[in-house]
Amino acid sequence: MNFLEERILKDGIIKPGNVLKVDSFLNHQMDVKLLDEIGREFHRRFKSEKITKVLTIEASGIAIAYPVAREFDVPLVFAKKAKSVNIDGDVYVAEVESFTHKNKNQVIVSKKYLSPEDNVLIIDDFLANGCALQGLVSIVESAGASVAGLGIAIEKGFQIGGRVIRNLGYRLESLAIIESMDDQKGTIVFKEQ
Amino acid sequence: MNFLEERILKDGIIKPGNVLKVDSFLNHQMDVKLLDEIGREFHRRFKSEKITKVLTIEASGIAIAYPVAREFDVPLVFAKKAKSVNIDGDVYVAEVESFTHKNKNQVIVSKKYLSPEDNVLIIDDFLANGCALQGLVSIVESAGASVAGLGIAIEKGFQIGGRVIRNLGYRLESLAIIESMDDQKGTIVFKEQ
Repeated sequence: MNFLEERILKDGIIKPGNVLKVDSFLNHQMDVKLLDEIGREFHRRFKSEKITKVLTIEASGIAIAYPVAREFDVPLVFAKKAKSVNIDGDVYVAEVESFTHKNKNQVIVSKKYLSPEDNVLIIDDFLANGCALQGLVSIVESAGASVAGLGIAIEKGFQIGGRVIRNLGYRLESLAIIESMDDQKGTIVFKEQ
Repeated sequence: MNFLEERILKDGIIKPGNVLKVDSFLNHQMDVKLLDEIGREFHRRFKSEKITKVLTIEASGIAIAYPVAREFDVPLVFAKKAKSVNIDGDVYVAEVESFTHKNKNQVIVSKKYLSPEDNVLIIDDFLANGCALQGLVSIVESAGASVAGLGIAIEKGFQIGGRVIRNLGYRLESLAIIESMDDQKGTIVFKEQ
């Protein structure tokens, strides 16, 4: 069991409907030491790749992607969920459905920050149905850039997202893959990696 | 002129309507080295305070607050702009109007992550009309916690936000205070600090 799986067992809270709350350390209150360790672990796993950009999606993804971008010493780009008047019209767009918020967002990245020369590591905190991640992949492809791989903190292995991304041929590394959760017993089973 | 003012002059883009675009290094694509330097600078300015939490607001605030929280070795808490099904109902709420997006958001922080013992450093990337910052202040006050101070990367000194916050008696430190911008000439005048 790795450091993140141990922390999930220690501080994660299971709610009915296969909801795992990690907002005491990962996506509302954040343990920066843990996030730095996540950054080092993704660098260890992807350091053979010549990463030129780290791409994530607002909001909580930014805190996972920050230490990763630092380890690789490359810019961090985050996709925005709503069109801002501070963003040029010249953007890559993907339609993304949020599993958490049960709504659709247009996700945008300015064309200035992805180019065909880029080898992009996509980072996010959660992978469930994979719509957000597929949106980021399609934005990287739209830019003619390469997807070096995808790094996820927590994957819900019992949902389809991870299988879809891997079946598309992308290298997906999830630090913790949840096979099953039981909110009655309060138990979590991780996939052996 | 400090490191951030120099960077704004180098890479900031002035748009009509007093819009300053810094999305090439601060709030869309992010220069992690610059953000780390911002974190060290806020630590230098507030290190006499016994900070227990760093509080910011999603999304781009997270990337400024992350290195600050690391410097102080305290948890980073970010206020959320929309009620998530993954957040307990037990939250502090403030109404915040966005200058950038021209809309209103409910900003929430779970009551679990702010307590009367907390001495909170509030961090954000931009200060314009100050509504977001006032929302964070009111959330800290609602929790019975103390506002140790507020750290802002870029303050629009010609808008009311900074004056309101300082008039309320809070210690507000802005790394760059813009006195005026001219999108025709492409000039920016910073306030002497």
